[in-house]
Amino acid sequence: MATLEDVAKKAGCSVATASRALGAHGSVSDGVKSRVRKAAAELGYRQGAQVHGRGSRRPLIGVLIPSITNPVFAASLSQIQNRMHLGGHSVVLAQSNYDPAQEPDAIEALLAERPTGLILTLCHAAQGLPRAGRLPPTVLLNNLPTSIFPAAVTVDNREAGRLLTRHLIDRGHRRILFVSGNFAASDRALLRYEGYLSALGEAGGEPLPALQIPFIGSYEQLDISGAIVDHKPTAIIASNDLLAFGVIGALRRHGLCVPQDVSVAGFDGIAMGQLMTPPLTTIEMPDASMGAVAASLLLDIAERGAIPRHLQVGFTLKPGGTVRSV
Amino acid sequence: MATLEDVAKKAGCSVATASRALGAHGSVSDGVKSRVRKAAAELGYRQGAQVHGRGSRRPLIGVLIPSITNPVFAASLSQIQNRMHLGGHSVVLAQSNYDPAQEPDAIEALLAERPTGLILTLCHAAQGLPRAGRLPPTVLLNNLPTSIFPAAVTVDNREAGRLLTRHLIDRGHRRILFVSGNFAASDRALLRYEGYLSALGEAGGEPLPALQIPFIGSYEQLDISGAIVDHKPTAIIASNDLLAFGVIGALRRHGLCVPQDVSVAGFDGIAMGQLMTPPLTTIEMPDASMGAVAASLLLDIAERGAIPRHLQVGFTLKPGGTVRSV
Repeated sequence: MATLEDVAKKAGCSVATASRALGAHGSVSDGVKSRVRKAAAELGYRQGAQVHGRGSRRPLIGVLIPSITNPVFAASLSQIQNRMHLGGHSVVLAQSNYDPAQEPDAIEALLAERPTGLILTLCHAAQGLPRAGRLPPTVLLNNLPTSIFPAAVTVDNREAGRLLTRHLIDRGHRRILFVSGNFAASDRALLRYEGYLSALGEAGGEPLPALQIPFIGSYEQLDISGAIVDHKPTAIIASNDLLAFGVIGALRRHGLCVPQDVSVAGFDGIAMGQLMTPPLTTIEMPDASMGAVAASLLLDIAERGAIPRHLQVGFTLKPGGTVRSV
Repeated sequence: MATLEDVAKKAGCSVATASRALGAHGSVSDGVKSRVRKAAAELGYRQGAQVHGRGSRRPLIGVLIPSITNPVFAASLSQIQNRMHLGGHSVVLAQSNYDPAQEPDAIEALLAERPTGLILTLCHAAQGLPRAGRLPPTVLLNNLPTSIFPAAVTVDNREAGRLLTRHLIDRGHRRILFVSGNFAASDRALLRYEGYLSALGEAGGEPLPALQIPFIGSYEQLDISGAIVDHKPTAIIASNDLLAFGVIGALRRHGLCVPQDVSVAGFDGIAMGQLMTPPLTTIEMPDASMGAVAASLLLDIAERGAIPRHLQVGFTLKPGGTVRSV
């Protein structure tokens, strides 16, 4: 790591002068200031380093997820963090809060740290991105690969949606409501809904328009009374488990029991779902291992020259007690 | 956020010139280059996208938490991340995995990034730390302040333990088992147990030795049969909600119902607890706001010269359905 001494030497001035030149109000000529700052930039010298900086900096990996408070992403992030730490890398964090408008700035913030690589879970892989030329090696996590991002770790969300909907259809459900996060904020949710559409299509059922719920950080006060009254669904599929919990709470407040009055199913397989009574019917995603796989893939690409590739991992239907036959 | 236009205007040159001046090989005079870079620095203009060692970095804040997968810490981390991002700071992450042995290395890794400040949730605030002289401004989150770390954001965990235990005693419970994470990994758990001891002492009850469970990332397979058989508790206090979920699962596998056979209560007030049937009796901690408070306190100290101080926030007893009177 470059020291202030290195900078002074390269700029051809004293350490004291270099220090003043790097300060906001250094009393040195513009020429010297410019030389020193140029030297500092070229050496990658970082101000503040001299204050706390023993040891050399570790390469940074930037990670963007929609929300740390969703256990799915927390599990991935935890695995990425542990894996990167073992590999001598530090993780810089960003979250979009499921808001496509926040994404570009969040990515810019990661790029400002000059990361060795990025692991991104985007609202939509095709949207809100800086120019590709400006990006370090990147692995998408949960987004399908694009021409800009050939490296990705995903599950087949469309097939997952089809499988879960099929599970409900096989139990006699036809009026199935799909409650989702905003599609603009999650291409996963959209793919799962497409799976719902194809499954109902195959079964000659009548799909309902998806009820999209804007993300407000919590679903504790979720109100879906309107959709319940309008569509009288016998079953509700939520685009993720957290939302499924919110739906169950909303049904209770509406005076309906799960599964006696309405069946409910989600996606993700977060631990809490199995602790509920009855346990939540869900599609179990290997979130933690997906994080570890994404971390390994990124390091293979960024540091060992591996070819960017798309890794698709499996998922499992986990029948619980929240779905009954009608 | 400052744009390149702002920088050019402040430096009194064209945008093209400003752009060249900020580049590594800009063909402009040193004087102009110096003016532009000074303007950029003063406006906090970010060149984040320029990955190869040019743009100015954002100040880094290092955050250490025991486990990202515990919703309590995820909530704090999410608030810290959002708050720091708005303030133009980046967050570098570390977790100890509730392992005191991993803590020093995790902190060293954070320090290697030369952070402007640290927010730490330590296993024990007095243990496993690098020399204080090497530490930037630091705020403890959930640990009581020490001579090395006068700045902290906490709740009164001992009083929380006393209050919850009192709640059980008032409902006729005397054989109350305290199931905890390893005290060596959480001084919060120890303080809560001390509150349990004092409440039982006041009531003339007989405290039981705490059953300490090593953290293995999940409590889904928790087995406390031995303690149940030995102590035949009428109630179990878990040192946090996640562990309480594990205890409820373990009781079920042991053939016992909650609360009919055994009452269960926890600490934290994570959202899932209220979605369970019956809802979990717990002590609700203001985790998210604690993260925001810690972030603000750190920036006050690190950037506005505020005096390090200890902020203690309140908590609330949240009676659910998992505790019955005996």
